[in-house]
Amino acid sequence: MKWCRFKYQNEINHGIIENNMIFPISGNPFSKYKKKEKPLTFEEIELLIPVYPKTFYAVGVNYMNHVKKMSELTGRVGTPPPAPDVGYRANNALIAHNKSIIIPEDATEKVQYEGELVVVIGKKAKNLNKENVFEHIFGYTIGNDVSERTWQANDRTLWRAKNSDTFKPMGPWIETNVDLENMITTIRVNNEIKDQFKTNDMIFGISEYIINITKYITLYPGDIIWMGTDEVPSNIKNGDVVDIEISGIGILSNPVIKQ
Amino acid sequence: MKWCRFKYQNEINHGIIENNMIFPISGNPFSKYKKKEKPLTFEEIELLIPVYPKTFYAVGVNYMNHVKKMSELTGRVGTPPPAPDVGYRANNALIAHNKSIIIPEDATEKVQYEGELVVVIGKKAKNLNKENVFEHIFGYTIGNDVSERTWQANDRTLWRAKNSDTFKPMGPWIETNVDLENMITTIRVNNEIKDQFKTNDMIFGISEYIINITKYITLYPGDIIWMGTDEVPSNIKNGDVVDIEISGIGILSNPVIKQ
Repeated sequence: MKWCRFKYQNEINHGIIENNMIFPISGNPFSKYKKKEKPLTFEEIELLIPVYPKTFYAVGVNYMNHVKKMSELTGRVGTPPPAPDVGYRANNALIAHNKSIIIPEDATEKVQYEGELVVVIGKKAKNLNKENVFEHIFGYTIGNDVSERTWQANDRTLWRAKNSDTFKPMGPWIETNVDLENMITTIRVNNEIKDQFKTNDMIFGISEYIINITKYITLYPGDIIWMGTDEVPSNIKNGDVVDIEISGIGILSNPVIKQ
Repeated sequence: MKWCRFKYQNEINHGIIENNMIFPISGNPFSKYKKKEKPLTFEEIELLIPVYPKTFYAVGVNYMNHVKKMSELTGRVGTPPPAPDVGYRANNALIAHNKSIIIPEDATEKVQYEGELVVVIGKKAKNLNKENVFEHIFGYTIGNDVSERTWQANDRTLWRAKNSDTFKPMGPWIETNVDLENMITTIRVNNEIKDQFKTNDMIFGISEYIINITKYITLYPGDIIWMGTDEVPSNIKNGDVVDIEISGIGILSNPVIKQ
């Protein structure tokens, strides 16, 4: 099942996508809702980020191949993280499918995409275990963790390196039924494949992260966890279009504008 | 003017505090509102965190005295931050005045308070300058940036060190009119004064932080910025009560429970 969030005639609502049409709902996708009878077309609506999180979690380095290749590239030995410790990103930076990534005026040329699987929490969750983790997940969407590498290396925090306005495209919608083991993430810039990797080939899996987080932290419906990226991302520049495809979910596409 | 947020008969509302009574409003404190005629008493309501932020910003080290004394204490030379780079905290950890700080079972004894001034944004803000910063501030409240120092030193991120559930008491209300230059922060544990410092004696002031943030990031009404703490905080333990007082705002008081 595909869930989207959209604006139609100045009202924001959630909807269910079927046969390329959007069925608005009454109620709340995370609890009780009713599908309305009359669908809308994609032309009639403005697609928004599929969920607005209470808290925006992000995993750092989470793919072994990424650690190895980055080590070869930089000549510094990278080590995989010792524990599934989560980090944070900021809501101001979220933008929807098709909206522009705007590179700030004083950014260097080292602005890069990162294609990531995004987990959307469905139920209030504390102290989860292996048996009940997945029943607390609502679905999955796609994120582009745009990063300015010079700022990432030199600032004390990731505030502008990863959270400048428009640096967190997310969407286009949430897919509730996925086959994690058989998903492939493909990143294209201007229709050319740049990276491709097995989406679930993570150092710490979704289950390990959520179990660890909920030992200390309550997750809420609509919270999002971005799961990290593999391979070695490339620079993006004014005029590019970045597509992150995850098989079974869809394609998140965003043009790039340099300020 | 004092603004609070509260629950009354299962509904959440904002209110204006006058003569120790709460006047509920209709509308929104950040845009248009109307004060209702009939006030409520503090006994009738449950006080909530005074604002629920879209994004929760926090300044790290921001007082020179804190840098010096921490250096003496640890024998390592601490250096003040080179720029007003902001960090983040998580909404899950926020609790209201009088609610319990719950120390997780496996935390060490090094759980400490940090008494902080909290800035509440009032208007959407991008690219602010010295002339217009303060007109974008709605008011000020008080935060206790509870921190588990062992986790803070050893984890890759501050996720559980600073964002475990209940680790971010905030309140009791927002004061819109303050005299920043003459405010004193006083921290008491079980009514004994532990630390006292000039609230506005910051390395980078409120204005510098907001100007720097809004070069890259849009701030929204209700966003909060925690401004850091001075002195060397002490441990807190089961049964303690921590009061953070900032003159001109009020007292944020929270009991401590060890799980």
